[in-house]
Amino acid sequence: MEKVKAVLKPEEMPKKWYNILPDLPEPLAPPLDQETDKPINPEKLKRIFAEELVKQEMSSKRFIEIPEEILEVYIKIGRPTPLFRATHLEKALKTPARIYFKYEGATITGSHKINTALAQAYYAKNQGIERLVTETGAGQWGTALSLAGALFGLKIRVYMARASYQQKPYRKILMQTYGAEIYPSPSDRTSIGRKFLAQDPNHPGGLGIAISEAIEDVLNDENARYSLGSVLNHVLMHQTIIGEEARLQMELLDEEPTTIVGCVGGGSNFAGLAYPFVRDVLKGKAGYEFYAIEPRAAPSMTRGVYTYDYGDSGRLTPKIKMHTLGHTYYVPPIHAGGLRYHGLAPTLSILINHGIVKPKAYHQTEIFEAAVLFARTEGIVPAPESAHAVKGVIDLALKAKENGEKKVILFNLSGHGLLDLKGYEDFLEGRLNDYEPKEFPILEGS
Amino acid sequence: MEKVKAVLKPEEMPKKWYNILPDLPEPLAPPLDQETDKPINPEKLKRIFAEELVKQEMSSKRFIEIPEEILEVYIKIGRPTPLFRATHLEKALKTPARIYFKYEGATITGSHKINTALAQAYYAKNQGIERLVTETGAGQWGTALSLAGALFGLKIRVYMARASYQQKPYRKILMQTYGAEIYPSPSDRTSIGRKFLAQDPNHPGGLGIAISEAIEDVLNDENARYSLGSVLNHVLMHQTIIGEEARLQMELLDEEPTTIVGCVGGGSNFAGLAYPFVRDVLKGKAGYEFYAIEPRAAPSMTRGVYTYDYGDSGRLTPKIKMHTLGHTYYVPPIHAGGLRYHGLAPTLSILINHGIVKPKAYHQTEIFEAAVLFARTEGIVPAPESAHAVKGVIDLALKAKENGEKKVILFNLSGHGLLDLKGYEDFLEGRLNDYEPKEFPILEGS
Repeated sequence: MEKVKAVLKPEEMPKKWYNILPDLPEPLAPPLDQETDKPINPEKLKRIFAEELVKQEMSSKRFIEIPEEILEVYIKIGRPTPLFRATHLEKALKTPARIYFKYEGATITGSHKINTALAQAYYAKNQGIERLVTETGAGQWGTALSLAGALFGLKIRVYMARASYQQKPYRKILMQTYGAEIYPSPSDRTSIGRKFLAQDPNHPGGLGIAISEAIEDVLNDENARYSLGSVLNHVLMHQTIIGEEARLQMELLDEEPTTIVGCVGGGSNFAGLAYPFVRDVLKGKAGYEFYAIEPRAAPSMTRGVYTYDYGDSGRLTPKIKMHTLGHTYYVPPIHAGGLRYHGLAPTLSILINHGIVKPKAYHQTEIFEAAVLFARTEGIVPAPESAHAVKGVIDLALKAKENGEKKVILFNLSGHGLLDLKGYEDFLEGRLNDYEPKEFPILEGS
Repeated sequence: MEKVKAVLKPEEMPKKWYNILPDLPEPLAPPLDQETDKPINPEKLKRIFAEELVKQEMSSKRFIEIPEEILEVYIKIGRPTPLFRATHLEKALKTPARIYFKYEGATITGSHKINTALAQAYYAKNQGIERLVTETGAGQWGTALSLAGALFGLKIRVYMARASYQQKPYRKILMQTYGAEIYPSPSDRTSIGRKFLAQDPNHPGGLGIAISEAIEDVLNDENARYSLGSVLNHVLMHQTIIGEEARLQMELLDEEPTTIVGCVGGGSNFAGLAYPFVRDVLKGKAGYEFYAIEPRAAPSMTRGVYTYDYGDSGRLTPKIKMHTLGHTYYVPPIHAGGLRYHGLAPTLSILINHGIVKPKAYHQTEIFEAAVLFARTEGIVPAPESAHAVKGVIDLALKAKENGEKKVILFNLSGHGLLDLKGYEDFLEGRLNDYEPKEFPILEGS
């Protein structure tokens, strides 16, 4: 039989996360205090994040040991995840390229988000924190943190963009089943929420507003901390378990990738798969190419400006240097809710600036078309976010056919779309809209 | 680290299905021709089912080799599936019992149904059949057959009980994403459908009616065959891959079960896990106990009569000897749509008659309560069907605590509930109804 899947046994799971900071081609610009515009004092960050996460955020250690308690729950929630060869898709495309994908949808909560949720909940619990507060857009992050709270015995509160709260009732029920508290954002629980509600009592909300509400909530409760699902270095680092597993699995299949692909909102699933391979490129040991795929409706990589900006709409976060569309940009309501963010991970921003990672943007109609082909050939219905990677891969595989190249493409299928079927229905019935903003409200320069 | 999960690599997957027929404590009563009441001529069955399936239905071979092409797609759709120890649930129950579960929700379509769907599609394709027609209740079976059709290049048509078609739009979209045609049943496409529509233009439908429509559809198209998702021997046999894997996995964990549990509608997921263990009991090699769990709203095992009855409402199927509530019984609208069936697998009926399998019935409020505890401890949201098994296991584990018994319980978590969250919402908001019919319309005696 052809080798079409690589599986690691629990005892074969890697036991370290990879921290890209010491290997970056230039040092990370420091986050600036939003009140003074000077590099932020880490002590101030400890009021927002669990202490260990603040340490990890700035760590110069290349590898960080994963605590035993986290390894145990990683195994419970579906790690190591499988790595597949997409043989049926290859045949449908008649491409000479070999296509592999790491399937993070195989985790219990259906996406990669659980990898950092468990780590964040573990460190918070260890510190004696009682509650984690966060925001969620599409709901994948909120779901992951809700389960992590249930498993480690922490209370979880989630501010969910009102538009998603109303359109995705299943996500809300899922989080409640795990025992979390969910509020539509903007809410009347925070001064920032009330400000937006005063503008429009049915304000659809957005990630930027929900982050502000979550942080304000935390600042009013000493036993609470904030939890973020992407962008920051510690979050991306927790995701590198994906790429460390994938390296072992490609070896099991006697393969080495030429090309690595992932979708990008804040950057965490992309980094999770790619950074352990980027490590080899930065050290001159390999020449992999990397493609990061984003929506044309939120094109921070392809059309954003590299500058200091706030992470949220309410300006409660420190300013970070990143590719941004401006913190007041309202991202149009595309189905890939997890990619509706104005900014980008600072580490990924640097890799793009240095030409190591190549960005590409697509409209949602073309990504759903690619996703339906994937579902009918490989059987998995991709999350709309992950469908961006699928579209990128299909285009690369068709180009390889045109050029007669024997590429070996590896991508991150970061989640399944079983709770996002409305987008598929809209596509199948020809009702999808594409969005391409003309300009972006970049307000703050560095 | 404690051993909490057993994983098989693709090359370790068992390569044979187990056929219980030669080992049964008494021979299976022959199906009767619905027109003559005499044992049916197998040739007549070949107009309804693919030829190889008719052979398998009556085979006296104990093991049947799984064709290479099916093994390959088994690997693609997520086999071998993992086997977990439910350590967090054990702690929450403070039970001395050790609890293990085989997780069939880890397949791409989210339940065990894909195991037979792929086999049926493969044999049909091999025979040159162009289309498979079936019915679906909750939608798990229809989803599985839709994907199997996409992977093997067959057209799929599904009659879906109208109540489910309207209440579960996500299931319909999922099947359409795989390229299948879906009709609400009763439909105006068949004479039987039109008969029921004449009684009530908004008739909610049911599995019995949808089966009749699918068979009538097949009888009108020479290139089509019918496909059934449970009850029959060949269907249960395809599911035994579950138990054959579980045997190897329990060995990897140095465990032997004392008690095996599954939920039962037609009987296929229960048989899939249990029959490879029943084999040892029938041969006197082991003394495992088996519990089969059903809803009180459809109690064919605990309150049905063992007699010849039709498999469908329209009396188009042969009569089979089984535990039945009567083919005209309308099963109340419980959330576990996959268990809303009046009959039971004939082989399982015999095992119950001989006291080898013990049946038990629960109300849906208590099964959802068990399912929420499971979600908050083990992280997986069970399908409402599988939640019956969870409830049965929790009661057995609590009884073991009472009696100080060191039981080792193994159960089949046959599917996840990500597309059934409405039931969880109704439970969390205290809106669930329980149903317990007083009597059943058993119309036909043997």
